Amino acid sequence: MAAKRQRSPRSPLTQEFARIAWLLQLFEKGGQSKSVVLGIGDDAAVLKPLAKRWVWTIDACVQDVHFKLPWLTGEDLGWRSYNAAVSDLAAMGASPIGALSSLALPATVDSKLWQDIARGQARAAKALGCPIIGGNITRAAQISIHTTVVGDAKHPLLRTGACPTDEIWLLGNVGAAAAGLAVLMHVPERKWDADMRGCVRAWRRPRALLKEGKLLSGCATAAIDISDGLAGDARHIADASDVALVLDVRAIERAILPRVRRVAAAMRRSALDWALGGGEDYALIATGSSRKRPRGARCIGSVERGQGVWLERVNGERVAVQAGFDHFAG
Amino acid sequence: MAAKRQRSPRSPLTQEFARIAWLLQLFEKGGQSKSVVLGIGDDAAVLKPLAKRWVWTIDACVQDVHFKLPWLTGEDLGWRSYNAAVSDLAAMGASPIGALSSLALPATVDSKLWQDIARGQARAAKALGCPIIGGNITRAAQISIHTTVVGDAKHPLLRTGACPTDEIWLLGNVGAAAAGLAVLMHVPERKWDADMRGCVRAWRRPRALLKEGKLLSGCATAAIDISDGLAGDARHIADASDVALVLDVRAIERAILPRVRRVAAAMRRSALDWALGGGEDYALIATGSSRKRPRGARCIGSVERGQGVWLERVNGERVAVQAGFDHFAG
Repeated sequence: MAAKRQRSPRSPLTQEFARIAWLLQLFEKGGQSKSVVLGIGDDAAVLKPLAKRWVWTIDACVQDVHFKLPWLTGEDLGWRSYNAAVSDLAAMGASPIGALSSLALPATVDSKLWQDIARGQARAAKALGCPIIGGNITRAAQISIHTTVVGDAKHPLLRTGACPTDEIWLLGNVGAAAAGLAVLMHVPERKWDADMRGCVRAWRRPRALLKEGKLLSGCATAAIDISDGLAGDARHIADASDVALVLDVRAIERAILPRVRRVAAAMRRSALDWALGGGEDYALIATGSSRKRPRGARCIGSVERGQGVWLERVNGERVAVQAGFDHFAG
Repeated sequence: MAAKRQRSPRSPLTQEFARIAWLLQLFEKGGQSKSVVLGIGDDAAVLKPLAKRWVWTIDACVQDVHFKLPWLTGEDLGWRSYNAAVSDLAAMGASPIGALSSLALPATVDSKLWQDIARGQARAAKALGCPIIGGNITRAAQISIHTTVVGDAKHPLLRTGACPTDEIWLLGNVGAAAAGLAVLMHVPERKWDADMRGCVRAWRRPRALLKEGKLLSGCATAAIDISDGLAGDARHIADASDVALVLDVRAIERAILPRVRRVAAAMRRSALDWALGGGEDYALIATGSSRKRPRGARCIGSVERGQGVWLERVNGERVAVQAGFDHFAG
């Protein structure tokens, strides 16, 4: 640091300020929620707590762990990471209030890419009604986006309330994002058919199911969003509620989109494995009484006394299920 | 994903669950704040908004950008990153409510290191009265810790209120962390004297000045914490308040600890440059009327009509000041 007589308009610090000014303008267009007193630009955002209960979460999206750059555009990345974070609010039956974004970028990332990421975030923010009201930018060896979101919920939906005799409900689709990821990894783009493109789009542009989560908040006993795979996330409910979740293979197979089944057949893969083990569709699993099953929820099994997650085959045989995506596996 | 008859207790997913269970136990010991209804373990933390205004911020600490592993222990890293994030609350005059931690770790990090990081976070959480109530773990190429913090403040201290005729106040020390960093980078440990060790400790174990921030909230017109250097952060106040900040060289030199001056002399470096350009002491700069200057605040200059940050030398000469740490510079 040296005192200088003149400020150079191209100094690195000026560059950083310029980036923040650009982001401020972009994110302000996304609107503000009435709880937000002060957005981007100070040491912290300021909120007026109007709600009875606030729910608060953080999610990360890391290059070469959650995505590889050739698989998606900057806008896809911004959209995807934002919806993934907001999906936790959906699982709590909450309405979003706002988000902070902590963005890490290699020095080699050009301004088009980081602006596209921000544009994807801004679009998602607008679509979800969840304005970006602050954040942080830092340099790093790989791109990563850490998004923290606050929402309000009168009665937050937890993982702990599942009771024996409850049904298990699925809201949204499972397997499409995993199919899309398999296509991205193994099929050259020139060979993609309409089904494959649809699955790739499911992976690139997931949507947090906020409306479905709110619908559940009046009737479900427990809920979770599927980020690591139906089987793995069902186990979170089983463990937290100290019950067994028995998944019905036929019901899950019926929940798989025809397009996903066709892609699985073309690639000689198992659509059921994608549905059970593939995360990132951000569908919701919930439990509740059959009398209260909301419109749009598909019954995919039942809660029983016991522990763990079980798969009931067509012949009635039950196998213990295990899996989901682990961030520390090889 | 494949359905298996038996669950292997060492599956990767079990490992991830085990990590989370370990963290839960550790962080629970740090106590809970009365606003926290539900901590670690669900899709999101749940809070009861008791305060009038909430302030909310996120900060990142990235390997090879903010630190190199040989420079500090895992505990230092956890402590440092946590205090850096909470420091933004201090700058708003807020009291902490809780934090979420999004941790990214290379697969090669051993369990001692990540547990030490978490222990450092837990210690800091306890010392600052700011429990960790949730978070996320992911794999990544380099260690990074993204910490988001919520606090309450009746009247949050912004950057925008500085008025001509205000004084500029400094609370805490400047230059010690930059001196410590210079020692870490350029002096082999066997050659460190007591002064150098003191400066290294200032860099490794900064403390968010929450008490000082609360003190300011009754009397300051604007405030900011020094994370990027006194000069750069003063400029944030100047820009936001549309005023000029004139820093008095003599007053800043008086604010530099003798140990920092001695280390600067030994290393043939400028202690004033460290004070002006080195961040990471997490001291606070504020502005306010001389009549309201709180105990412990040192007057280091004055607010005037105009723009930018200026350094007034002993001979009365004024030079425009520029700098601070930029995360995208080389």
